[in-house]
Amino acid sequence: MPEFLYGHWAVIEAMRAGRRKLHALMIHERAERRGTVADVMSMAEERGLPLQRVQRRILDDLANNGNHQGLALRVGPYPYCDLEDILNTAARRGEKPFILLLDLLKDPQNVGSLIRVSDAVGVHGIVVQERRSVAVTPAVVNASSGAVEHINVAQVTNLVSAMKSLKSQDVWLVGLDVGPNIPPLDKTDLNMSLGLVMGSEGDGLRRLVRDTCDLLLTLPMRGEVGSLNVATAGAVALYRAWSARAWEGWAHA
Amino acid sequence: MPEFLYGHWAVIEAMRAGRRKLHALMIHERAERRGTVADVMSMAEERGLPLQRVQRRILDDLANNGNHQGLALRVGPYPYCDLEDILNTAARRGEKPFILLLDLLKDPQNVGSLIRVSDAVGVHGIVVQERRSVAVTPAVVNASSGAVEHINVAQVTNLVSAMKSLKSQDVWLVGLDVGPNIPPLDKTDLNMSLGLVMGSEGDGLRRLVRDTCDLLLTLPMRGEVGSLNVATAGAVALYRAWSARAWEGWAHA
Repeated sequence: MPEFLYGHWAVIEAMRAGRRKLHALMIHERAERRGTVADVMSMAEERGLPLQRVQRRILDDLANNGNHQGLALRVGPYPYCDLEDILNTAARRGEKPFILLLDLLKDPQNVGSLIRVSDAVGVHGIVVQERRSVAVTPAVVNASSGAVEHINVAQVTNLVSAMKSLKSQDVWLVGLDVGPNIPPLDKTDLNMSLGLVMGSEGDGLRRLVRDTCDLLLTLPMRGEVGSLNVATAGAVALYRAWSARAWEGWAHA
Repeated sequence: MPEFLYGHWAVIEAMRAGRRKLHALMIHERAERRGTVADVMSMAEERGLPLQRVQRRILDDLANNGNHQGLALRVGPYPYCDLEDILNTAARRGEKPFILLLDLLKDPQNVGSLIRVSDAVGVHGIVVQERRSVAVTPAVVNASSGAVEHINVAQVTNLVSAMKSLKSQDVWLVGLDVGPNIPPLDKTDLNMSLGLVMGSEGDGLRRLVRDTCDLLLTLPMRGEVGSLNVATAGAVALYRAWSARAWEGWAHA
């Protein structure tokens, strides 16, 4: 089944990464060849892709009314990897594994945002469960600013089994949870082989997922509203973990 | 000019905070009195507000097609404060000032998200410039999950003048910036009288704003995409600053 990626960054990063089969670029019929549109057209031509001029209505449909910015790219399916690929990426870079596990997240915006931050902090891969969870849809690609086209995403049948497999390979699983008796994020040195586990938007971590974690940490909150979006909480935790690694891999370190 | 707040949390927090004049609650004509809708109706009745049943189309219009969840609240204007109120809030709590300054941010979603995190970490107030910047619109209230109804927001004529006024009152201004020669976020102990300055989505900090900062710090990034949304970057920086204060004011500390 071909998919249609949409929006400047999703389209650009899918071409740059070159991991998917690329079929065709569709451009709004009246878009002028300049700025980002010109860049995208040149990239498509270099890759020998056919260019199709289409009506706005068609782009709206292809993008499910998402913000397509006048562009869509017809591509093959997202190239999921497996757990071993993630661990191999860590080994190849000579780094301790740094993995994000998502327990049944539902909102493409949150998942995309977490993937974008994962790319920024050098996460080696993201693990999601196949059923009852968001997959890497075009909306996720868009929300990740295209970052998901470069990073490893493993879609597993059962998240708990994947967690056990990672534990058997010496990855420590840290669940981010909410509750009164959970130590705060900075109470543990996160410079370790780490799998950070985030719960879903409404329900947090499932019981069995929580019980499979080696350690639970919480993100403190005060204030009147006292809740955070899961993507915000995850970003803070991912940055805390990377900072514990002394910004390993940062060009300016 | 009355405004219409929309969405469960915006409506609930505006009533809980009670800082605005409250005029009337409008509910979708077929919404049943149960769950959150029942809670909201009870809150409105306790406050003696008239209830109006309206068509979905009207709610769509009032909410500018935002996600109103069947509810809108007719209210008076947002109660901006001034810089002194922010410093007084810090003094009253016996805490060193912790302030967020936003330089010409444009996206209500980003501003709302930053305000929600500010509430969660105990920021004493947020400073925005009156012109060329997002104000506290209903979209911002919604994006903040209602948190902005509880927190201080000062709308100033000129951001640089406000910065100078804060400096003269011993607040250190730390700008979050992007560039090769800027030290990373964790190179400075942020446990100080702090004004964190965030630049706008496309352009970052304006030159004069940057030059008025006492110190610039950067959020390291690696990866293929190598950019972060301003709301994500701000959340990481705000949490870093609160963690440097040993989670001051956290109920479980």
